[in-house]
Amino acid sequence: MILHDYYRSSAAYRVRIALELKGLEVEHRPVHLLRGGGEQFTAAYLAKNPQALVPTLELDDGVMLTQSLAIIEYLESLRPTPRLIPQDSILAAKTRAVALVIACDTHPLTNLRVGGYLASELKASPDSIEAWRRFWILEGLQAVEKLIAPTPFCFSAEPTLADLCLIPQLFSARRFAAPLDHLPRILSVEAACLELEAFKRAHPARQADAE
Amino acid sequence: MILHDYYRSSAAYRVRIALELKGLEVEHRPVHLLRGGGEQFTAAYLAKNPQALVPTLELDDGVMLTQSLAIIEYLESLRPTPRLIPQDSILAAKTRAVALVIACDTHPLTNLRVGGYLASELKASPDSIEAWRRFWILEGLQAVEKLIAPTPFCFSAEPTLADLCLIPQLFSARRFAAPLDHLPRILSVEAACLELEAFKRAHPARQADAE
Repeated sequence: MILHDYYRSSAAYRVRIALELKGLEVEHRPVHLLRGGGEQFTAAYLAKNPQALVPTLELDDGVMLTQSLAIIEYLESLRPTPRLIPQDSILAAKTRAVALVIACDTHPLTNLRVGGYLASELKASPDSIEAWRRFWILEGLQAVEKLIAPTPFCFSAEPTLADLCLIPQLFSARRFAAPLDHLPRILSVEAACLELEAFKRAHPARQADAE
Repeated sequence: MILHDYYRSSAAYRVRIALELKGLEVEHRPVHLLRGGGEQFTAAYLAKNPQALVPTLELDDGVMLTQSLAIIEYLESLRPTPRLIPQDSILAAKTRAVALVIACDTHPLTNLRVGGYLASELKASPDSIEAWRRFWILEGLQAVEKLIAPTPFCFSAEPTLADLCLIPQLFSARRFAAPLDHLPRILSVEAACLELEAFKRAHPARQADAE
């Protein structure tokens, strides 16, 4: 399998953690989102992913899977252990809900393409775009703080899909200087995750395309 | 079960279709997102849903489930038939990917709270907010057009999670006057869905709180 990846993409980072936890090996193929106007807009990449977003998981038979959470659910069926979605249906719903607070209501508002539109179409200043990003990141994280029950991971003694989404979002939060001190439960989950080799190996700074 | 709902919310509309297809009865309790500054901001509702968003599914034992896609996956485990996520893992991944194109990368950019921020903080004009909504809706739908394989529903002979997300997004697209004529596959899926009683009964205009 080939993961079309970008070191700093928080959606790709989620998938990298899942692959590491499950011990699945893939070839990482970087798609540089800024170089040359954005490698995600080449015809070759658009044929793989019509959204021009990363990640894309290319299977050995050429099938292309897009959307990080759909890819992680696929990996869960491909290699069910360790479980990333709890077996209990209520706990699974709470786990997926936290993942979706981040993947739907937080990250897409703050990514590169939205910042580009705010600047070019709405003439938003760099400062107001930074403030926009911090605002939506904190909206999302403050909701997550209320939804999780750290033990020490978001919902259990092992990391789940919720943790896989939370850690990359915290990486972005720090990039955009969002204050996190008032989120003690989230910070305790982060400390637990960052102890694990899988999370360390998936970190943006450890990727071959990191700058 | 109680569904905390708003007739025009496309996230709530997805859950209503799932409930109808599965023949699950719930009490609908409207949360008016505009009246009195927004009923979603009352302390009573925030205790159910810290994001101040709809829908919330309140279970009989008082457990609160949030995030429409997490709720639908829960309903899938509660009543597995008819299946909304295909059994085949590749088809499941493609189905979830289309759902997420809409639920992550389209709808959250165009909803009420984001429009509010654009107006109040970035001083965007009503026209530029409408243009913003149309832009992101078309970005999402144009990707969906390439990802689906209508037969006659998005991926199969029966509706799946992808169809449940697509139909409410099309309702919003029309509210915001996004042109859809260049999306023939999507329009053919829509025609197939709108034949079904479950989709008719879940439509915003058919809800008790419709205005």
